[in-house]
Amino acid sequence: MSQPLPSWADSATTRGIIEFVERVSGGGDGAVPAPERVAVFDNDGTLWTEKPMPTQLHFIVQQWAAAAAADPDLAEHQPYLAAVSGDFAWLGAALDKHYDGDDSDLQLVIGAILAATAGESVVDYERSVAEFYRSAKHLTLGTPYRDAVYRPMVELLRYLEEHGFTCYIISGGDRDFMRPITAEYYGIPPERVVGSAVGLSYDADSAEVRYGTTFDFMDDGPIKPVRIWTRIGRRPIMAAGNSNGDIEMLRYTQGSPHSLALLIHHDDTADRGDAAYDSGAEKALAAAKEHDFTVVSVRDDWTSVFAASGAADM
Amino acid sequence: MSQPLPSWADSATTRGIIEFVERVSGGGDGAVPAPERVAVFDNDGTLWTEKPMPTQLHFIVQQWAAAAAADPDLAEHQPYLAAVSGDFAWLGAALDKHYDGDDSDLQLVIGAILAATAGESVVDYERSVAEFYRSAKHLTLGTPYRDAVYRPMVELLRYLEEHGFTCYIISGGDRDFMRPITAEYYGIPPERVVGSAVGLSYDADSAEVRYGTTFDFMDDGPIKPVRIWTRIGRRPIMAAGNSNGDIEMLRYTQGSPHSLALLIHHDDTADRGDAAYDSGAEKALAAAKEHDFTVVSVRDDWTSVFAASGAADM
Repeated sequence: MSQPLPSWADSATTRGIIEFVERVSGGGDGAVPAPERVAVFDNDGTLWTEKPMPTQLHFIVQQWAAAAAADPDLAEHQPYLAAVSGDFAWLGAALDKHYDGDDSDLQLVIGAILAATAGESVVDYERSVAEFYRSAKHLTLGTPYRDAVYRPMVELLRYLEEHGFTCYIISGGDRDFMRPITAEYYGIPPERVVGSAVGLSYDADSAEVRYGTTFDFMDDGPIKPVRIWTRIGRRPIMAAGNSNGDIEMLRYTQGSPHSLALLIHHDDTADRGDAAYDSGAEKALAAAKEHDFTVVSVRDDWTSVFAASGAADM
Repeated sequence: MSQPLPSWADSATTRGIIEFVERVSGGGDGAVPAPERVAVFDNDGTLWTEKPMPTQLHFIVQQWAAAAAADPDLAEHQPYLAAVSGDFAWLGAALDKHYDGDDSDLQLVIGAILAATAGESVVDYERSVAEFYRSAKHLTLGTPYRDAVYRPMVELLRYLEEHGFTCYIISGGDRDFMRPITAEYYGIPPERVVGSAVGLSYDADSAEVRYGTTFDFMDDGPIKPVRIWTRIGRRPIMAAGNSNGDIEMLRYTQGSPHSLALLIHHDDTADRGDAAYDSGAEKALAAAKEHDFTVVSVRDDWTSVFAASGAADM
């Protein structure tokens, strides 16, 4: 067959995706008007690697280390201690504990995240995030984060857009940490990036929007459908995720008369920094069986994993 | 001159708008890349009439009257009493009191708005709102609300889009009360409608998003720039409003290197249901002088006010 998704294997999964896209964008049974062709994508672990830990933690660790250097008392407490000592495992474990229902370490992380931006304007934060992405290297791949993007998923984004879809990111990660690079890495502009958010306020003196001292919401699990409605005002017809936090988004999407729910399964064991893991996806894999999600095997359904370069070159 | 805005007079205001649009969309000094050409519009009093009271109050009055008919005890209390007795003046006054800093009556209104939708799914609400718009007539014009839209503003929306702008509604009104009709009336799809919102939750049993029992935020005054950042992630280069609640949005927009801030001034006295009024715009008119907003005189800058038909026919 002609292959619109070159980094995808000629598998039943790939054929299922193509059949879905052709059906909803065609003129026959199952056609969906273009404005309603909304597709939503989780980010970490779905559009790019989340191992050894989400990129956002790498960034925040740098900020905490700098803060602890300026105020040595901080270095005696978590998560600053982990940042100064390079104990990334503590941070990864904090997220794993969250997925297991224990938020205690994640609350320390969130508190320190809030402290790092309290009072900062959104444009100053945007600038420091962009600077991080220009210089940082992925911790195991050793490449810029731009090359930690999953090439098959960028191909899928473009393929969907060619068929009249509008694609959004719906991530548990910080919305404003993604926005500076999603257009370049994925071809998705800032207005279509949905994520967790720190509370904001308007500073009339400087005419700037600034971060406050509280977390507004964590865009994960049952909050994902809520944020989808808030931001888009439509129920998606396609969704892709990879973890327990994506189950509700996938189920919400399946409420559409014609829908496709993809669950990326990291069953590959190749030596590429993104080793096989089900951790944080156990419930999602069980839900896939119960609710007929389409499971995408990274090992069997993708012929290459990482983009040698980002969306702009594809 | 050739006139791209047929319902606008050949005035300095109109020429200023056209010069701005041509400059930012042209190739010379002051050019702004298309993705950054974001324009934001207040709704009530800016894109359509808000007199004798915002359309949303007309809708909610019908809902309250129905609720009071089912439960006569309700009819002894405001705002149900006003709904049953047809005392629309009480409702208009509640909003005027809000703009004067007294929220007591508005809180009664908000409480009753919340009671009307608590537990309802967003799609059921969408359906009842759409049904209202199909049958309701504007209280003084006697036409469908579709014809209470300001024709010059719809022309401006289309003109901006033809020059690469993306237009959003940023309204103090309920977001989900606008979404069912903004595509038809204004050519603005639901994902570009920003407004006040009731808190939502995801109901996993039905896979539906439902309204809760609390008000999430009131998208007015300093909250408008916050919602603009949250939803769009860019600072607009053009904004249009008409009341005190739009000052911060207009000032935020002026933080862009090239910007246009429009304040619609209802100084017309023609007998068309939308008589001259400065009420609720006193501070905005003062801010216009101080900060150089472009004041649009409905009397002098518009040659016709209401659309005989909506966006689809223009």
